[in-house]
Amino acid sequence: MDLETRDLLDRRRRLMGPNVSTFYDDPVHIVRGQGVWLWDRAGTRYLDMYNNVAHVGHCHPAVVQAIATQAATLNTHTRYPHGLVLDLIENLAGRLSHGIGQAILTCTGSEANDVAIRMAQAATGKMGLIATDNTYHGNTSAVSQLNARRPPIGGPARHIRLVPAPDRLAPVGGSREGQALAFAAHIARAVADLEDNGSGFAGLILCPAFCNEGLTVLDPGFLAQAIAVVRRAGGLVIADEVQPGFGRLGSAFWGHDWIGIAPDIVTMGKPMGNGHPVACAMAKPDIMAAFRDVFPYFNTFGGNPVSAAAALAVLRVIDAEGLQENAARMGARLLKGLRSLRHPAIADARGIGLFLGLELVDAGGAPDGALAARVVNRMRATGVLAGVMGRANHIVKLRPPMVISEAEVDLALDRLAQALAAER
Amino acid sequence: MDLETRDLLDRRRRLMGPNVSTFYDDPVHIVRGQGVWLWDRAGTRYLDMYNNVAHVGHCHPAVVQAIATQAATLNTHTRYPHGLVLDLIENLAGRLSHGIGQAILTCTGSEANDVAIRMAQAATGKMGLIATDNTYHGNTSAVSQLNARRPPIGGPARHIRLVPAPDRLAPVGGSREGQALAFAAHIARAVADLEDNGSGFAGLILCPAFCNEGLTVLDPGFLAQAIAVVRRAGGLVIADEVQPGFGRLGSAFWGHDWIGIAPDIVTMGKPMGNGHPVACAMAKPDIMAAFRDVFPYFNTFGGNPVSAAAALAVLRVIDAEGLQENAARMGARLLKGLRSLRHPAIADARGIGLFLGLELVDAGGAPDGALAARVVNRMRATGVLAGVMGRANHIVKLRPPMVISEAEVDLALDRLAQALAAER
Repeated sequence: MDLETRDLLDRRRRLMGPNVSTFYDDPVHIVRGQGVWLWDRAGTRYLDMYNNVAHVGHCHPAVVQAIATQAATLNTHTRYPHGLVLDLIENLAGRLSHGIGQAILTCTGSEANDVAIRMAQAATGKMGLIATDNTYHGNTSAVSQLNARRPPIGGPARHIRLVPAPDRLAPVGGSREGQALAFAAHIARAVADLEDNGSGFAGLILCPAFCNEGLTVLDPGFLAQAIAVVRRAGGLVIADEVQPGFGRLGSAFWGHDWIGIAPDIVTMGKPMGNGHPVACAMAKPDIMAAFRDVFPYFNTFGGNPVSAAAALAVLRVIDAEGLQENAARMGARLLKGLRSLRHPAIADARGIGLFLGLELVDAGGAPDGALAARVVNRMRATGVLAGVMGRANHIVKLRPPMVISEAEVDLALDRLAQALAAER
Repeated sequence: MDLETRDLLDRRRRLMGPNVSTFYDDPVHIVRGQGVWLWDRAGTRYLDMYNNVAHVGHCHPAVVQAIATQAATLNTHTRYPHGLVLDLIENLAGRLSHGIGQAILTCTGSEANDVAIRMAQAATGKMGLIATDNTYHGNTSAVSQLNARRPPIGGPARHIRLVPAPDRLAPVGGSREGQALAFAAHIARAVADLEDNGSGFAGLILCPAFCNEGLTVLDPGFLAQAIAVVRRAGGLVIADEVQPGFGRLGSAFWGHDWIGIAPDIVTMGKPMGNGHPVACAMAKPDIMAAFRDVFPYFNTFGGNPVSAAAALAVLRVIDAEGLQENAARMGARLLKGLRSLRHPAIADARGIGLFLGLELVDAGGAPDGALAARVVNRMRATGVLAGVMGRANHIVKLRPPMVISEAEVDLALDRLAQALAAER
């Protein structure tokens, strides 16, 4: 670690407090980005195989220009009518089905999910929420109750039930069909619990690609029984598209279209502004009306003209540069490469578009988080930035900006193969 | 209302749903801003006497440049060490006393307050929170429970108690000293309630200038007894500086310094990035450590290099242009003007720096929200944008960008006098 990085880490501890995580044993002090590339202070270049926020590439000139131009023209809030936020919602609505056409703009995916769960509660008049037990939907007080990591202060919330997340290594229910039935049965039990304890059932929130669950790549149709249970119980379905949305999955623009479910509420965040803080919750008109009737919600920065300009620029770049198609092609190339890797620790190689995972286990077949950490640290040392995911952080996560090229995919595969080879 | 504005309002209803408020009977379709001036599509110019978010003036070139330059260079998140967010926290810490020197960066004041209440809960191990009954601290599920407007779905939260806000027209406790004692007594009762019902007492959250309460201009020292009650009960003090902070009060950079209290946690938002979504919660190291020990909080967009560059630029402009001093001078001029207005409906004219209010009552002395609405609509028609505040929205609110000049203050006063004169 160079002296300047060490100094930054000291200042972080002093100014940000303890337990503020960084990536890698030797954290990268990045100072510049362009496309899929990042540079540190010494001028060393890194291939970014991790950051989904810089969706259309770091510092995409069209997005930067949109932000700079609008910031120099006007930045107010939605209590003044302005066309840009309406153009944005119209554009998003045109990409959604199932009657979902109205939006509340926020600044973060956390805020969007915080609104979404209140939409479900307002529309049903019930409090109860169901999520999986290995997920992440955000960091507000209310939303973080859905994240299983630790019980919140004040004890676990009565109105929340977490069901076992689908898992590739330890499938509950055996076969794919058995897993789907088991998942639906857990939801039915959770609904019954919530009704018994007086909470009632408002809705199920999930990431349609189960990204935080370790990208459990399920067959389209997997959720049919689970959704049927939710519908019979009068609950709503919230699709958290913060990770799968905006074309990353290649074959579909949204995760819920990929897996074939019809949500009532859709939330989006991270990639939406290519790093500019913009996010939103979209819903059917009757659900929006129910929310608007109960909550006088206003978000000062949400949907401001600069955020709207940034998000519109991202959508235009995705279309103009064919990035959804690129995600399909480059994702397929990357997946083929992952599947051709040979190493005793590899339990599974999987992916949907440009979101991929390489699941690593020890000699006994147990998740090997230590090995995954060593692999990504080795990759970092050879100039490729990857991450980890899964219950034991044992799955190497590859989730690059959508503008990656064939040569860059091949470089990433080469470095990953090297890192694995060093671990024999 | 012109056809284009009508069309925008139709699109808003269709794309944003019902009950999305706009300002004024004839909403202003603003397309451009500079300093204290806003322009509509027809080229009509409006003096902005309302927007505190555009703190250093709409589209300040130094802030726009900082955003544009950093957005073109790098925009990542705080899991990579970067100097700008540390420079920002260091700068803010240098303006704070009482040992408050560590920060969590968020995107909105709501997120900052959502973090702050969890900091108080983590540090005390208790849940109970006290706020005033006519306040607003933000829009997340947890924070909106502090806003008295409507009881939340699921019923009022057990761990929240609201105490009567200080009020100028109907002072609880009579004299200023009586009011201070009454406020402290209400807090003592709320603490006892929270201890009785098992919540325990974590802290008191308040805006030190009681901005949302109608800018109840209190004597410095007013809160001494209330704070003593909080301390004796082992609770923490959260100063919500989203409105009073960043020099607006003229005589002090922060509201808590103006009124003379020593908070444990300080939150900031709106003006911090001049419209760019950046906010933060700052605390003493022991409180930050308690929070970080319990909550693995990470905010993807919070503290990103672009947000940090925007916030740093705002601080530099405040210093370089002497905007706190300007707030003191222009605020005094505006207050003198308000006090010289003669109209039977005026019950009070008050202000702290560049945050001022003109309280209007009917012939019977009751708050007259309808009159205040007519006055600001008349002002809008003559090119000056003001707002309303207070329990009955009966107080004309003047809270312009900090770069306002003498001539602009005088213009605002002239238009306000005209609007009042038309209401005799």
